[in-house]
Amino acid sequence: MRMVDIIQKKRNGNELTDEEIRFFIKGYTEESIPDYQASALLMSIYFKGMTPQETATLTKAMVESGETIDLSAIDGVKVDKHSTGGVGDKVTFIVAPLVASVDVPVAKMSGRGLGHTGGTLDKLESIRGFNIAISKEEFVANVNNHKLSVAGQTGNLAPADKKLYALRDVTATVDSIPLIAGSIMSKKLASGADGIVLDVKTGTGAFMKTLKEAEALAKEMVSIGQNLGRNTVAVISDMNQPLGFEVGNANEVKEAVEVLQGKEVNDLRKLSLELGAHMAVFANVFATYDEAYAALEKNLENGKAFTAFRNMVEAQGGDVGMIDDLTKLPKASHHIEVKAHQDGYVAAIDAETIGVAAMHLGAGRATKEDKIDHSVGLSLKKKVGDAVRAGEPLVVIHSNDEDPEVSINKVYEAYEISDEKPDTLELIYKVID
Amino acid sequence: MRMVDIIQKKRNGNELTDEEIRFFIKGYTEESIPDYQASALLMSIYFKGMTPQETATLTKAMVESGETIDLSAIDGVKVDKHSTGGVGDKVTFIVAPLVASVDVPVAKMSGRGLGHTGGTLDKLESIRGFNIAISKEEFVANVNNHKLSVAGQTGNLAPADKKLYALRDVTATVDSIPLIAGSIMSKKLASGADGIVLDVKTGTGAFMKTLKEAEALAKEMVSIGQNLGRNTVAVISDMNQPLGFEVGNANEVKEAVEVLQGKEVNDLRKLSLELGAHMAVFANVFATYDEAYAALEKNLENGKAFTAFRNMVEAQGGDVGMIDDLTKLPKASHHIEVKAHQDGYVAAIDAETIGVAAMHLGAGRATKEDKIDHSVGLSLKKKVGDAVRAGEPLVVIHSNDEDPEVSINKVYEAYEISDEKPDTLELIYKVID
Repeated sequence: MRMVDIIQKKRNGNELTDEEIRFFIKGYTEESIPDYQASALLMSIYFKGMTPQETATLTKAMVESGETIDLSAIDGVKVDKHSTGGVGDKVTFIVAPLVASVDVPVAKMSGRGLGHTGGTLDKLESIRGFNIAISKEEFVANVNNHKLSVAGQTGNLAPADKKLYALRDVTATVDSIPLIAGSIMSKKLASGADGIVLDVKTGTGAFMKTLKEAEALAKEMVSIGQNLGRNTVAVISDMNQPLGFEVGNANEVKEAVEVLQGKEVNDLRKLSLELGAHMAVFANVFATYDEAYAALEKNLENGKAFTAFRNMVEAQGGDVGMIDDLTKLPKASHHIEVKAHQDGYVAAIDAETIGVAAMHLGAGRATKEDKIDHSVGLSLKKKVGDAVRAGEPLVVIHSNDEDPEVSINKVYEAYEISDEKPDTLELIYKVID
Repeated sequence: MRMVDIIQKKRNGNELTDEEIRFFIKGYTEESIPDYQASALLMSIYFKGMTPQETATLTKAMVESGETIDLSAIDGVKVDKHSTGGVGDKVTFIVAPLVASVDVPVAKMSGRGLGHTGGTLDKLESIRGFNIAISKEEFVANVNNHKLSVAGQTGNLAPADKKLYALRDVTATVDSIPLIAGSIMSKKLASGADGIVLDVKTGTGAFMKTLKEAEALAKEMVSIGQNLGRNTVAVISDMNQPLGFEVGNANEVKEAVEVLQGKEVNDLRKLSLELGAHMAVFANVFATYDEAYAALEKNLENGKAFTAFRNMVEAQGGDVGMIDDLTKLPKASHHIEVKAHQDGYVAAIDAETIGVAAMHLGAGRATKEDKIDHSVGLSLKKKVGDAVRAGEPLVVIHSNDEDPEVSINKVYEAYEISDEKPDTLELIYKVID
């Protein structure tokens, strides 16, 4: 078998066999196939796509290129949740304790990564003492005892995907639906979950700008999961404005805990319940989605979900005092109101630009070496559809810099004010299963 | 400027600027741009093509990546001829002395390369003593004195093309019209000719199997040449069977000399006159194509073209005795008749397969280290349209192996005999200028 023939076959629009795909992934991982042949194949895939069978085989081969996590020591059906990424997305902190509260085991492995704000691990580290570097035994024991633990990802998961992703990044082959889907799913599958609930974001602040693209990605990922024997569902949700009101690290934890304590943050609450209900059904805890949804809603109201979160913090050495009194979470030294220049309605809030504003405050990481400032961020005071008067604050910026000029400008850039009240944004567009 | 943006721009089907193309070629030659980015761009070009402006700039940048040959010491307008390659193509040995005989200076630099038979240099070395490794001074003096010299190519011409060609070969990006055209033309332009006459082959034995592809390549090359200020014309000629009757090295020289001595080998004679007439017009020796054609035909008949060839052989140390008595050229030890199995007409002769038969005899080079056997080859006894009876020879194989089994089988594979007389093959399909 020769790599050049495989490239030519795909270039000509033909379907690759399982053997050919495995030859490529194995050879590329072992470095017997050079980058220049891999990039030519990736560009051919960009133009010619892949069939569901090809994409599933590619994903499986990437999973098998490295270690996989064995969660069999944890009782019950393990269900994972993954978001394609958005601004203000603190859903994990609500969904995880929510489903744990109905006895669904949540064994969450997370990475850090680069982004406008920190990742799940960074945000949790806003809580003093919270330890994500626990041993595998401790992790398993925590899940078995409390149904919930979040730990830093260890092990060499899907190294072929890591290598390919780095190559795609410099060869303009990132935005290919089968390659994106295979990349995400290979990591999820290597993490050992039995079921996977995907939150696919769409809108100006998402990687998938249009519903059509988001739907294509969702379908591809669900197809891969099902092809490889895992229950998989994708919820396509809105990212035409940040989720909830808080964007940052400590303030995102704060908002999530407030929801767990019963606060009505509509979009955040509803999306968390919906994703959680799918997880609980996959875990065979409830027979129907409606039953699951109702039970989760009840546990939000009766405080059981909050207790699950609090137990996790305690079990991992976090300062529960900060959770019981949210004012004790890290706070920035300056709070700057960004005020509207005119009367009208908020017609749009570009989530990406709000993310950039947060990044400039120090909430995120541009390179692996950057340190995150947990205390900084933005609180949105107006969301899409809200009426606003000149002089009212659109956003409060939490900053350790007295005059965060760039971030202030970014807020103005992100907000679009119009004379007419805009149509209400949908929260959930579609469910693909 | 970032290479990834250039790849993405082409991938999205947009036209690259001159600056972007030069950035790529310069960076790739200097190795600041890695192979994996180059191959991603090449694959994008394969899918999205290039505009005439882009292709011209690419070609120019490849020329400028290395040395160029300065022919200004040679008097007159220098016109080069290039064939895209076919089996039995000994046209150069006829055209070059033919135009030299009407005072068009022919300063021919040739390479060796890999192929079913040797290249121009190898074939000339069938003549004992013929020296292709002459100094630049000798080369220039020969052309000024005799209007004709053939020498081995020296200097580092179009290194970017060499590097890109090697990459295309292993990344399934060879068959892209703008890339093929740019590659051929960069070498021709670096060789310093003022005018270029292209012989673009089409048919089963050519790289361009269909007339449509050949025409696209011809147009692209003519466009590049004209864009970069050189008179350029392309003749699209047939390669649905070998050209002439002889395929090999010494026997190809023999056939060419026979044509120079007046022998009527229709296809070879006509194509040589046509290509030569275009060259003579570009050289401003004649006002019209018809005048040039008539003058060349006259010089074939009166022996002046033959004399020009003989003078070149003498000037470069070759044994003219071999030219005056062609039986003295190297001869193989065995001559095997491959006989028809049935009565009928020759409907097709797959030139490529005949080439492979010659290769197996030792007439060509599969790797740079291979040694060529000048004495071996094939003599076609029947060409397309000829009637044949069972038992009559189709081909005589000249071999130094008593039983060249593979080559015999290849001959049978190449010949298609049918009951009905086939349509006559065209020799020249089109002229693109």
